[in-house]
Amino acid sequence: MRPLFLPTNQLGRIAHVTFIPASTARTVKAVLFDVFGTVVDWRTGVAAAVSRFAGEHGLELDADAFADAWRSRYVPGMRRVSSGERPFALLDVLHRENLDGVLEELGLDPGSFSPAALDELNRAWHLLPPWPDSVPGITALKRDYIVGPLSNGNTSLLLDMAKAGGLPWDVILGSDVSRAYKPAMEAYLRPAAMLGLEPGEVMLAAAHEADLAAARAAGLAAAFISRPLEQGPGIPGAGVATQPWDLSVSSITELASLM
Amino acid sequence: MRPLFLPTNQLGRIAHVTFIPASTARTVKAVLFDVFGTVVDWRTGVAAAVSRFAGEHGLELDADAFADAWRSRYVPGMRRVSSGERPFALLDVLHRENLDGVLEELGLDPGSFSPAALDELNRAWHLLPPWPDSVPGITALKRDYIVGPLSNGNTSLLLDMAKAGGLPWDVILGSDVSRAYKPAMEAYLRPAAMLGLEPGEVMLAAAHEADLAAARAAGLAAAFISRPLEQGPGIPGAGVATQPWDLSVSSITELASLM
Repeated sequence: MRPLFLPTNQLGRIAHVTFIPASTARTVKAVLFDVFGTVVDWRTGVAAAVSRFAGEHGLELDADAFADAWRSRYVPGMRRVSSGERPFALLDVLHRENLDGVLEELGLDPGSFSPAALDELNRAWHLLPPWPDSVPGITALKRDYIVGPLSNGNTSLLLDMAKAGGLPWDVILGSDVSRAYKPAMEAYLRPAAMLGLEPGEVMLAAAHEADLAAARAAGLAAAFISRPLEQGPGIPGAGVATQPWDLSVSSITELASLM
Repeated sequence: MRPLFLPTNQLGRIAHVTFIPASTARTVKAVLFDVFGTVVDWRTGVAAAVSRFAGEHGLELDADAFADAWRSRYVPGMRRVSSGERPFALLDVLHRENLDGVLEELGLDPGSFSPAALDELNRAWHLLPPWPDSVPGITALKRDYIVGPLSNGNTSLLLDMAKAGGLPWDVILGSDVSRAYKPAMEAYLRPAAMLGLEPGEVMLAAAHEADLAAARAAGLAAAFISRPLEQGPGIPGAGVATQPWDLSVSSITELASLM
């Protein structure tokens, strides 16, 4: 929490804000964010793109269920990379393979659509809408901290998303830079090193406790952001943390107000 | 040059601006910048830090000459990496080694200073001042293009510089991401690929014709930015292009006005 009286410089402005999480006992210099679900609403964004695709191709689809089915293949797809079963592949490539899988699951032949139409649908992941508090919250944090994504998305995906949604990142280092997918330790340690920081000088902000637990194991501070609507409405227990984190908030603007 | 009548969307705002350089015949999507000399004034910034260092250690030094001597070791240091004589090393490491070399050249023993003081002086390269037109020019280009550095600086150096100088980059991929130093082809091709772009969709803007020539050979568009004061005042022929480039301008704001 901000101290009541902040140090000011000669111009009367805040000279330095420090936040020292309990888990690291180090001053935070960078706040890095999980993206899918934490910063952007993947389900709404993907479902809207699926609806457009269905309309253009005369398909009757449950767009929300399609988005959920696509997302359900996300972790297994990355696990095949992390386990060494296959070499590193861009998340764009995994998403595209998973799209074929969902279509087949629905009895649709991916080969019956033009590759360009499927690539366009796959680009939905580049253009997901931020939650309402994301841009103001990240903008506020940027005054005192380095801000960036710490996501399994590749750099071009995260860059397109930032340009489309107005996310004011200082730096974007996608999973294709660290060539590792969370929750592998390298996915947390390599970005910290490239920013010239010790792991304990970095805080991960995320809506998923498994992500936060892995970040903590790698030596990062960890802030939980509640996103009860990530998987859609009416899910019991959604958005509730089951253990204590350095901070636990319901929005990125709240996070900024506490740091 | 912008067409006289720009296409506008329903809100009456510019919907899409395209600039197609002669050398590539492709629409530019990203403008990436050489940094040392092109975006920031390394000589003034380094000389100021050298003056402070000299004052703190009671040394009589010509700070401008020191900055020039330090910079003169820049290309040879990278060449030992590019030639394979040594494995990739961060530019921070090369700058630090070169600092020792300059001190020895002046008859000073690097071991007589605290490592922390030398590291602090080395950080001058992280905090170089932008030329006056850099922030407004990059800000203007950012509306229609992806903007970022394409520099031999490492990511943390470029990030610190951006935070200190207010450079509004969309993305920062330092030489430690491509693990190659310009003018090696990989130094141009890998960043383009990571942005999801073809080389011809990227324009390099730089004050150095050797850099532009290498970018052109790699398939990028090339814009020359005249920086006649980069090496200090009164240098005959400084800032004059010796061959035609896709654009040739005297500031980044002028570049923005033409694209």
